[in-house]
Amino acid sequence: MSSFKQADHKLLMIPGPIEVSDDVLLANAHPSMAHVSPDFVPVFGESLEMLRKVADAPSSQPFIISGSGTLGWDLAAVNLLEKGDDVLVLTTGYFGDSFAECIATYGAQPTQVVAQVGSRPSEGEIENALKQKKYKAVTITHVDTSTGILMDVEAVTKIVKRVCPDTLVILDGVCSVGSEEIHMDAWGIDYLLFASQKGIGIPPGLSLSLASPRAMKTFESRSTPPAGFYTSWKKWLPVMKAYEARTPAYFATPPTNLIYALHTSLKTMTEGPVSLAQRFEKHREASQRVKKGIENLGLEQLAQPDSRQSGVANGMTAVRYPRGFKASDILPKMAQRGVVFGAGLHKDAKDEYFRIGHMGVSVVDPARKDVDVILQKLEEALAEAGYQKQ
Amino acid sequence: MSSFKQADHKLLMIPGPIEVSDDVLLANAHPSMAHVSPDFVPVFGESLEMLRKVADAPSSQPFIISGSGTLGWDLAAVNLLEKGDDVLVLTTGYFGDSFAECIATYGAQPTQVVAQVGSRPSEGEIENALKQKKYKAVTITHVDTSTGILMDVEAVTKIVKRVCPDTLVILDGVCSVGSEEIHMDAWGIDYLLFASQKGIGIPPGLSLSLASPRAMKTFESRSTPPAGFYTSWKKWLPVMKAYEARTPAYFATPPTNLIYALHTSLKTMTEGPVSLAQRFEKHREASQRVKKGIENLGLEQLAQPDSRQSGVANGMTAVRYPRGFKASDILPKMAQRGVVFGAGLHKDAKDEYFRIGHMGVSVVDPARKDVDVILQKLEEALAEAGYQKQ
Repeated sequence: MSSFKQADHKLLMIPGPIEVSDDVLLANAHPSMAHVSPDFVPVFGESLEMLRKVADAPSSQPFIISGSGTLGWDLAAVNLLEKGDDVLVLTTGYFGDSFAECIATYGAQPTQVVAQVGSRPSEGEIENALKQKKYKAVTITHVDTSTGILMDVEAVTKIVKRVCPDTLVILDGVCSVGSEEIHMDAWGIDYLLFASQKGIGIPPGLSLSLASPRAMKTFESRSTPPAGFYTSWKKWLPVMKAYEARTPAYFATPPTNLIYALHTSLKTMTEGPVSLAQRFEKHREASQRVKKGIENLGLEQLAQPDSRQSGVANGMTAVRYPRGFKASDILPKMAQRGVVFGAGLHKDAKDEYFRIGHMGVSVVDPARKDVDVILQKLEEALAEAGYQKQ
Repeated sequence: MSSFKQADHKLLMIPGPIEVSDDVLLANAHPSMAHVSPDFVPVFGESLEMLRKVADAPSSQPFIISGSGTLGWDLAAVNLLEKGDDVLVLTTGYFGDSFAECIATYGAQPTQVVAQVGSRPSEGEIENALKQKKYKAVTITHVDTSTGILMDVEAVTKIVKRVCPDTLVILDGVCSVGSEEIHMDAWGIDYLLFASQKGIGIPPGLSLSLASPRAMKTFESRSTPPAGFYTSWKKWLPVMKAYEARTPAYFATPPTNLIYALHTSLKTMTEGPVSLAQRFEKHREASQRVKKGIENLGLEQLAQPDSRQSGVANGMTAVRYPRGFKASDILPKMAQRGVVFGAGLHKDAKDEYFRIGHMGVSVVDPARKDVDVILQKLEEALAEAGYQKQ
């Protein structure tokens, strides 16, 4: 199956899309199948079931919908919120800001707690903010892809359950599901939204999400109809229930090939030789190696010192350029060496740092040696750029 | 590349998803690429340009968005309509009904002209309806996938231009673009929405659309903001303009692999040995052969006699079961013979007919002989079911 990889393929080490394994690519090239075919129906149904396993959410309702990860924000705003609802948004980068904008678009009222670049809001700030108003929901970006800041979701949900137990907890797991440990049921997450092209390890194009029983009850007891059509759970819920019961149903044509790819990846994640617990451990190990390697080169993380211990992602690393160097000094030299890193994305610092993704097969399959390769190539690129460790 | 086709792959002859050519499947298995990569940017940009060619719409603004075809209705309702706007919906099946429901969800007011099963509204009915109110827009389902009824879009737009020239013309081309002739600019279509899994010949998962200069002006002069976030052209327009100018931009991660597949198929459609005009002609020829073959077997189309001449699709055929036969007598026997047909879908007649798709490679590539195969297998299945031509 190595025929998929052209000789000039560059190693994709950005925080999504990530490298995709050959068996998943082959599944994405599945011959065309009817969305109602008896061969396809169980593939869809099993994929729904496996999503619950990945998020440790046995009681939840899964959704697989054609769309980018961004669509998950709309699904939350359209189905769980109503006009005038107050929502607390914990922001650690670009994606918190955008989630707040999405919420406001549909008429709910976001209040943001914004951490400075490379930090996260303290537990005291969060507790204090939660006490200011009766919030219908609080949103957490588990890992903000723009900064690599990791939130301690378990700790935040504990505060919410203590201070305002009626407040729904909405978790943006786009850059965390599959690479960070998540226990949706045990932590009390009400809605977990994510996408296909990061820790799940397939090409982009699927909006994935899971809703708790409480979230579904909130949806069912809305006083106004959902504020969208394509995004309405009224339309999707019967479809998801039908496929899980192994019968077809129709609202919109599901993206059959991406669902074959999803099924293949979820099978590996839930039944492969590497258990989910081991998968998370491998992400932590790889992350430590990358962060240690960065430090050894004399480079600094974007993350502030107070966040570096427990507040940084295990699936990506944001790295400051050395003083006097910029993107054009480093990233093209990495590309020449066959490695793609991501540029900065935070509005206040985007020219000051680059981003390395280390998720999925790149860290789970040791034979690839992707982490060794990127650290080696980075050292070479820096040297060619004239950088000397101080 | 025939390795993609398993020996047990059944010929998929439903009105979407359709059979996908091997080069497109291979493109869908492209190694993972960054959405901002200098290799991917022109693939996205050229795809936007080729969409204009397929719809003969040089003046239009194209959009490629991750989503099912259904998302195109939301894009129309969110960006072109505002609360209270009156919209005339010309309905020839399931999809007209659903489009009306989508429009109502966002607060505009649909008025439907509903044709009886297997017919289309007459030009007199349409003209009369257009004179009743000042409509912001009229929607036409070019081919309603549930019935195979084809609207004469050129004739309808002529009526609109004469009776109410300010009314926007919105065309649902999900089951027509690529299989039916469309001249968006010349006919005066303001918004054409479609999907990837029918005449475009790639797997499902892309919402494709084109907006006329007048549609973009209508959008820019809205008195209220667009009623969605993921669906807002405010977000997508800068992205589409950037990629067409061969620079990356970000709102949501584009479905890179599906865009490689789209690019591959659009290249064939616009630059391949079969011209677009020949492609449409091949669809007309294949359609005639299927419809003649059906008639030779003594079967009847769902289309009423008054529609059979010019009012039926060239990419699909809806066929009534012979008297005394039902879906379970025929469709499983087709599947046993390696051919997948679609069941009925119109709410008033869904158990009375089945649907045959004949689009894309199945009719453009004569070496496949797909039309011969399905007619032959249908004759065998009918005989096994005990059917005798009367």
